[in-house]
Amino acid sequence: MGQLTGGDPSLLRRINSAVVLHALRATDCATLTEITRVTGLSRPTVEGVVEGLIEGGLVVEAAAEDGARRQGRPARRFRFRAEAGHLLGLEIGPHRVAALLSDLDGRVLGAQAKEVDETAPADERLDRLRGAVAELLRRAGVARSSLRAVGVGTPGIVEADGTVRLSTALPQWTGLRLGERLSRSFRCPVLVENDANAAAVAEHWKGAATETDDVVFVLAGLSPGAGSLIGGRLHRGYGGAAGEIGALHLLGREAKPEALLSTTDEPLHPLDEQAVAEVFALAREGDQRARAAVERFIQRLVHDVAALVLALDPELVVIGGWAAGLDGVLEPLRCELARYCLRPPRVALSVLGEAAVATGALRLALDHVEEQLFAVDGTVTARR
Amino acid sequence: MGQLTGGDPSLLRRINSAVVLHALRATDCATLTEITRVTGLSRPTVEGVVEGLIEGGLVVEAAAEDGARRQGRPARRFRFRAEAGHLLGLEIGPHRVAALLSDLDGRVLGAQAKEVDETAPADERLDRLRGAVAELLRRAGVARSSLRAVGVGTPGIVEADGTVRLSTALPQWTGLRLGERLSRSFRCPVLVENDANAAAVAEHWKGAATETDDVVFVLAGLSPGAGSLIGGRLHRGYGGAAGEIGALHLLGREAKPEALLSTTDEPLHPLDEQAVAEVFALAREGDQRARAAVERFIQRLVHDVAALVLALDPELVVIGGWAAGLDGVLEPLRCELARYCLRPPRVALSVLGEAAVATGALRLALDHVEEQLFAVDGTVTARR
Repeated sequence: MGQLTGGDPSLLRRINSAVVLHALRATDCATLTEITRVTGLSRPTVEGVVEGLIEGGLVVEAAAEDGARRQGRPARRFRFRAEAGHLLGLEIGPHRVAALLSDLDGRVLGAQAKEVDETAPADERLDRLRGAVAELLRRAGVARSSLRAVGVGTPGIVEADGTVRLSTALPQWTGLRLGERLSRSFRCPVLVENDANAAAVAEHWKGAATETDDVVFVLAGLSPGAGSLIGGRLHRGYGGAAGEIGALHLLGREAKPEALLSTTDEPLHPLDEQAVAEVFALAREGDQRARAAVERFIQRLVHDVAALVLALDPELVVIGGWAAGLDGVLEPLRCELARYCLRPPRVALSVLGEAAVATGALRLALDHVEEQLFAVDGTVTARR
Repeated sequence: MGQLTGGDPSLLRRINSAVVLHALRATDCATLTEITRVTGLSRPTVEGVVEGLIEGGLVVEAAAEDGARRQGRPARRFRFRAEAGHLLGLEIGPHRVAALLSDLDGRVLGAQAKEVDETAPADERLDRLRGAVAELLRRAGVARSSLRAVGVGTPGIVEADGTVRLSTALPQWTGLRLGERLSRSFRCPVLVENDANAAAVAEHWKGAATETDDVVFVLAGLSPGAGSLIGGRLHRGYGGAAGEIGALHLLGREAKPEALLSTTDEPLHPLDEQAVAEVFALAREGDQRARAAVERFIQRLVHDVAALVLALDPELVVIGGWAAGLDGVLEPLRCELARYCLRPPRVALSVLGEAAVATGALRLALDHVEEQLFAVDGTVTARR
């Protein structure tokens, strides 16, 4: 990148700072000469920028190591201080709350999950989450004041300000000002996202979708939801409701998935994942009623996924949501999509499994911090 | 916009030229002083740029008019020459081919349509189109060499190079290298687009969707298709197949629309729009069989539209496709979407009707030319 020779000096400093930080972050450590070469900035500019970054705590001089043994004074080396701040990725689900902690490079330093009853009121659910976060920070020896951003993934339609507009999965969740509530526990920005959206981001970051920018992630619960990346960017929809495909089965007045998957005349509880896992297990063992139930469920899922695929035309569909049992849906899905979609996408199973939502929330927190550190006039200069 | 003071001089010239052209296009005509004030460029720079644009034929000195009566020498005034080039928007449909001609401001100068048999082979269909274009240019007195870009809307999945990957609506259309075929008739770029996509662009430009950037246009034929704008940009999908929702009804093995809408035991011909209009007319007159048929058809359409809405969450759904009869579907659609969608969109009828596809094709041609005239390093500086 060439050096700019005019314009607003504070903007220039920010640009040059972002460029140097990006160059440093891409290597273990580098000399001023190396930074000068990679960035195309002048030596005095690089020296000034590095000095400022050291003062801000984001860069540190690396220990001399082998260099001291060589003749003459070894060149000073500098590195990005990924430990200068920390990030949290949180999941608030029907059965559990989970937290992931990382440094500014997104390297995961620890994880903590707690079970929570699906009938738990909002206060109790948030208390469990706060407990998990406190334990995680204590175990990792990270001060709360070191947190730079917190991402949260949870079921429902989430407004831009972090309010849950609608959520049928969790008690007292609709209307909850979740972002504001959690902001009381953290002094850094809190970013709330729909759980399927967060999972889509996670699979794109380090899961089944690292090779594509056009992916639909299907959270194949009893009320399926989906998150979509278009051109690598999350597609939230005009009102944050994109991908809420679970309502489609209401239209045909057909049976709901909890009835479809039941092997008795009683429907399953919509959130009873263990009962679902048992039906899948029974089906694998050859139980006729369970096999028929799984067959009905797969037909329903195929229909919902086909609707998403026909509307969006992704390169890849990732199926996730239940830890076990879902691998059986891949082949039927592939077959049916190939029959009915004009251009069938690839279909893959989630790689991240139950870690997907918290991982995606962490990535969203990292995106936020990277925008602050590396952004030039709203444009992120680089994504790792 | 401030003046740049360094860098590549030819890039600078292009930027300054785009800035001046944009300023001129936004007014009837302007003096050098006015251009200098609006653009923030220096007087000598503006003089040089305007000189270059006059040489290129894109700008002309306006006649003196009232100015001559004032004392002293009147200031010279300049205007954008919208007549310096022309654009075509073409529709190639099952029953007709249509062409729209405009100047570089997108002002429509003439239109020409010709009927074509739905069974006509590709060569015959293209001949009819060429005939319509030749008539239109002759009537408008516009030379073929004046054309700067041609947009085309047609049913099917269209590749980026203008090849029709798949089209079930038109004979011999699948696999046709449509862009290449039409390029033989024109010396300017030919841009081929799916018809529903083109219609979505048209309604956004000058139809029912001018107020929103997140819209789904449903071409509600017997095999419905859809085009979507997300954030004002066309969402084509990874393989150009986004919105091909017509295949969804195949999944439930339910009756196809042509059977749904039939009032006899025989299905309608999939492309027989007149028969469809008759069924709608009979239903309005109270015919019981026709009313039941329309009811079945609306249920089907609601389901397909709901799938699109749940997947994409647009602000607005525009229903178009048939010239008559569709107004009856709006209320049922609104009711059903309100019941089943978590955040129901507004629903409106197409404003452009059967002109939508050609109008959208024209807008795509205009976009292409604007990118050439006003683009700075791939960024369009302004959209009208």
